[in-house]
Amino acid sequence: MIKRESFVDDILKEMREIINQMVPREAKITDIEFEGPELVIYVKNPEAIMQDGDLIKNLAKVLKKRISVRPDPDVLLPPERAEGLIKEIVPSEAEITNISFDPSVGEVIIEAKKPGLVIGKNGETLRKITQKVHWAPRVVRTPPLQSQTIYSIRQILQTESKDRRKFLRNVGRNIYRKPELKSEWIRITGLGGFREVGRSALLVQTNESFVLVDFGINVAALNDPKKAFPHFDAPEFRYVLNEGLLDAIIITHAHLDHSGLLPYLFRYNLFDGPIYTTPPTRDLMVLLQKDFIEIQQSNGAEPLYKPKDIKEVVKHTITLDYGEVRDISPDMRLTLHNAGHILGSAIVHLHIGNGLHNVAVTGDFKFIPTRLFEPANARFPRLETLIMESTYGGSNDYQMPREDAEKKLIEVIHQTIKRKGKVLIPAMAVGRAQEIMMVLEEYARVGGIEVPIYLDGMIWEATAIHTAYPEYLSKHLRDQIFHEGYNPFLNEIFKPVANSKERQDIIDSEEPAIIIASSGMLVGGPSVEYFKQLAPDPRNSIIFVSYQAEGTLGRQVQRGLKEIPTIGEGGRTEVIRVNMEVHTIDGFSGHADRRELMSYVAKVRPRPERVITVHGEPQKCLDLASSLHKRFSISTRAPNNLDAIRLK
Amino acid sequence: MIKRESFVDDILKEMREIINQMVPREAKITDIEFEGPELVIYVKNPEAIMQDGDLIKNLAKVLKKRISVRPDPDVLLPPERAEGLIKEIVPSEAEITNISFDPSVGEVIIEAKKPGLVIGKNGETLRKITQKVHWAPRVVRTPPLQSQTIYSIRQILQTESKDRRKFLRNVGRNIYRKPELKSEWIRITGLGGFREVGRSALLVQTNESFVLVDFGINVAALNDPKKAFPHFDAPEFRYVLNEGLLDAIIITHAHLDHSGLLPYLFRYNLFDGPIYTTPPTRDLMVLLQKDFIEIQQSNGAEPLYKPKDIKEVVKHTITLDYGEVRDISPDMRLTLHNAGHILGSAIVHLHIGNGLHNVAVTGDFKFIPTRLFEPANARFPRLETLIMESTYGGSNDYQMPREDAEKKLIEVIHQTIKRKGKVLIPAMAVGRAQEIMMVLEEYARVGGIEVPIYLDGMIWEATAIHTAYPEYLSKHLRDQIFHEGYNPFLNEIFKPVANSKERQDIIDSEEPAIIIASSGMLVGGPSVEYFKQLAPDPRNSIIFVSYQAEGTLGRQVQRGLKEIPTIGEGGRTEVIRVNMEVHTIDGFSGHADRRELMSYVAKVRPRPERVITVHGEPQKCLDLASSLHKRFSISTRAPNNLDAIRLK
Repeated sequence: MIKRESFVDDILKEMREIINQMVPREAKITDIEFEGPELVIYVKNPEAIMQDGDLIKNLAKVLKKRISVRPDPDVLLPPERAEGLIKEIVPSEAEITNISFDPSVGEVIIEAKKPGLVIGKNGETLRKITQKVHWAPRVVRTPPLQSQTIYSIRQILQTESKDRRKFLRNVGRNIYRKPELKSEWIRITGLGGFREVGRSALLVQTNESFVLVDFGINVAALNDPKKAFPHFDAPEFRYVLNEGLLDAIIITHAHLDHSGLLPYLFRYNLFDGPIYTTPPTRDLMVLLQKDFIEIQQSNGAEPLYKPKDIKEVVKHTITLDYGEVRDISPDMRLTLHNAGHILGSAIVHLHIGNGLHNVAVTGDFKFIPTRLFEPANARFPRLETLIMESTYGGSNDYQMPREDAEKKLIEVIHQTIKRKGKVLIPAMAVGRAQEIMMVLEEYARVGGIEVPIYLDGMIWEATAIHTAYPEYLSKHLRDQIFHEGYNPFLNEIFKPVANSKERQDIIDSEEPAIIIASSGMLVGGPSVEYFKQLAPDPRNSIIFVSYQAEGTLGRQVQRGLKEIPTIGEGGRTEVIRVNMEVHTIDGFSGHADRRELMSYVAKVRPRPERVITVHGEPQKCLDLASSLHKRFSISTRAPNNLDAIRLK
Repeated sequence: MIKRESFVDDILKEMREIINQMVPREAKITDIEFEGPELVIYVKNPEAIMQDGDLIKNLAKVLKKRISVRPDPDVLLPPERAEGLIKEIVPSEAEITNISFDPSVGEVIIEAKKPGLVIGKNGETLRKITQKVHWAPRVVRTPPLQSQTIYSIRQILQTESKDRRKFLRNVGRNIYRKPELKSEWIRITGLGGFREVGRSALLVQTNESFVLVDFGINVAALNDPKKAFPHFDAPEFRYVLNEGLLDAIIITHAHLDHSGLLPYLFRYNLFDGPIYTTPPTRDLMVLLQKDFIEIQQSNGAEPLYKPKDIKEVVKHTITLDYGEVRDISPDMRLTLHNAGHILGSAIVHLHIGNGLHNVAVTGDFKFIPTRLFEPANARFPRLETLIMESTYGGSNDYQMPREDAEKKLIEVIHQTIKRKGKVLIPAMAVGRAQEIMMVLEEYARVGGIEVPIYLDGMIWEATAIHTAYPEYLSKHLRDQIFHEGYNPFLNEIFKPVANSKERQDIIDSEEPAIIIASSGMLVGGPSVEYFKQLAPDPRNSIIFVSYQAEGTLGRQVQRGLKEIPTIGEGGRTEVIRVNMEVHTIDGFSGHADRRELMSYVAKVRPRPERVITVHGEPQKCLDLASSLHKRFSISTRAPNNLDAIRLK
């Protein structure tokens, strides 16, 4: 009944008039258009705008839009010539390792080992580049490890830049279809991840907009799509998909239970809009989605989506750094904040209906400093509803203090090595693996560990992505890397496992070793292979360092099951006898424990009016909601999937 | 993504085989089809089935379907011939007043003053009729008052019988599209009437079916469709309408805040399925919907729908008496129970998902005996969730005891008459008017009142409909009518007001009088006209006997406003000076008061696990929910519109 009226042309006309008045003629404006959540001004002479340092800021203030100035495509030098010129301008000591172009935004990405020399004194060299090639230069430090993922994402963005630009314009016109509105009502529906862990998906709805936060899959329930997929049968979700009304999808972080079903939407043409997330999350989720395809194939299953669908994810992703505020629909404004959980993980803050309501969705978060990250952000401009995870929300879910956890880890390792055993640490390729690496690296550096640490599964590639985004790491790590010039990820004690032969050699070897292998819950991936072969030997140890979901092999082993039937090669049932030592050390979790969860609500500012607990087993969500209500006298709820809650 | 698969042909085939085995050949079956919630067996010789008294019962047991046996249309005599024959067979002392035919169900409705004589000793005469004309006779007592509404509804059903039959077959095939299912999930969404009074509309959803309970309009908020209409903008409702997936609409009772927007759905082709309600509710809602059109017209507004849309309501309505159990979708079974609120008012009981969950929606209800009705039913076969009204749910919402209320009413009337004043009792045409009539009639009969009682607005016609359904009235009234042969509705003290001239004569007359006029809240209708002219004279009295909603003129007067600006003739603003006495007597309400609401939950069997309070101002819904939780230790909720609550 209600059609989406669009006033975007009227709005643009008005803005063009204002811009033409404020921007000097010499800039030679050629086009003004919305592209994604920005208003882009194309000019033949960007310098004329840049001269007035405050002009863009003032424009943004008057127009209440994020403004980008870009060189008109006609003035851009062809990439080959531009590349040549850049290499002439920049001194060879800068050690440029890669130059790539993103024509959709008129940007040239210059990767160099010494980025300072590309920028030059007071940005002198950079300015010279701009003047000569007209592309807007973005200077990036050459990551110490090569990431195939990052390379292929850049490739996609470069080759698909025409499509991408068209896409961004469509997104822009959708966002600005109407002047900013006061919403009449706001509500959320749990499509997945309410009173459970896995398949996180939250549909935020107003009378004007629809936005999805996360779209995960429960990999522990793959045999039953009704439990593995978010609720495609929720009538409001079907409506939004059928009518093509989904304004955006926001991804809190890369783990598959938050991002794993995104490519599926493209496979079945269910979505054609923007995905907002941080740059590291984009890269990591692509890595994990690709890995997910491979795991399914190796399990003999038909993958849920194809590599080309992941490519669509890349093409549809608009990245935002922490703290960048963007309009994503006529009545919603998005900001991502550090969540401290894994690289790029974000708390989603939505400012809805021009001041009517503010919601923060924590996603998975950590509220103490870890080796990798700062604690989650707890300060928002405004906040009425907080939707928070409850993985460790039970009243007894206190994790071991970090120091004790590290001590215990080292102890188990030492004892295992002493008896010539191997230590298997199943870990999600993204997150726990790097955290454990940083712990072990420190002990190794001071001489505490001398056996090799093998990294198997996607861990090596995930680590490479970590090294590409040092600004997303903890201050301590950044200091090490930038000021002390030492990158702990590069310690030679870490050895990637290249193939299944190397893996078998490690298993067969009589030498002790530490193996960090994905997956973290023993559902697919090399960790399962190691486990099967290492389990019978009582000299070995397995150490669980992360949450083991209901229904996973990891959970069974953790609970002490000693004989585990599995289907081996040729389809025969085999029984794995678990004689290895089984340890659980929960102090490394990327999830806030009960203490952190309570203290987060105590410290978050402003204090929300309402807390909704999600992402936990039913009793944990309920327990946390009830304790928060008692302690802080605020309204709390632990809703079910398919519950819709009116926020305003 | 999910399509509605239909297995109805397979199901029918199976049933046909069983029926052909169980029914004797002589019956000559010509067709077997689902029609509405019944399996209909067409035969050339119905007698052959009727001989075995248990055959239909046994068939129903085996097939688990409601069974109807109907004469094959080919054997039915043409109506004119049938009518002649019936008049020959039935003795003239029976005083047949009308014979009408419903070809869609092969039924002849014989209206007679002495129905017993149409039936004959042991049904002898009836059997003779069946044998000769083959139509299935339904004998009805001639209502003592002619109802134009009932007459026109019969007309529609007779002339539209072909369409109607096609419609019933479609409905049947929809209901039985699948064998009875265990639902995966069940939830409800408030589209209107949650934490408010007006625009009641509740969407019950499972993974298989969608059913709407009530579809009302808030007549006190007509100037703002966003507040007057149920939430058409609820995404799940849009989905259901867009995809044509609404299985049924159930109407609890005829008042416009529960039924008033039904015709609108037909006007815009938003619905083409069945409406389930009691026969009196069908008739009364048609009356009120027509009246609503007229009120809008007289207010100079464009009516929201046309008479032809109300005709569609009639064509789509399938009536059920209290206690009749019917399948209405593959996983929902409906029963209506007495609600004691107004004629035909029902508590809706839904048995969902083959034992998974049972919900009762009280609609408006009364839990003490009134002059008109028995108290609401409080016994269900099963019950997990109770959704109850909260109009008087506040902790102080105790109504005056009936006796005191009647005493006070008579007292105010006597005093007003003594000072030669007039008594204006604004009352909803349906419900309060008849209740007050019954009170005044008793006092009049014993000599307590001698002035005329004028009935204006739709009250006379509504009363006629009451006299047509004596079986829906209280036992006391039924006894009076059937056994004592006295019908209090026919007391000559009641005088209908035929037109505006008569109305003006009553106002202008110097004689005292009692005027019962609709609407009950002074929003349109003749009560407003009386009020405007009677208000300035201090000899007069106005007595409010029913709930006055926020935003109505009635509420303003009730609160003691003495100068009320209105728009008079010619668009000028006039100020009504209220000098008349203003009384509120709440003891006549058709709504359960606080005491009844609490006692209903105490007495309802089985005790539900969860109570959801709706249909009341926010504080009343919240107060009732909280008190019920404290008293009975059951889970309670007072949700908002657009909240969706998972029941299972």
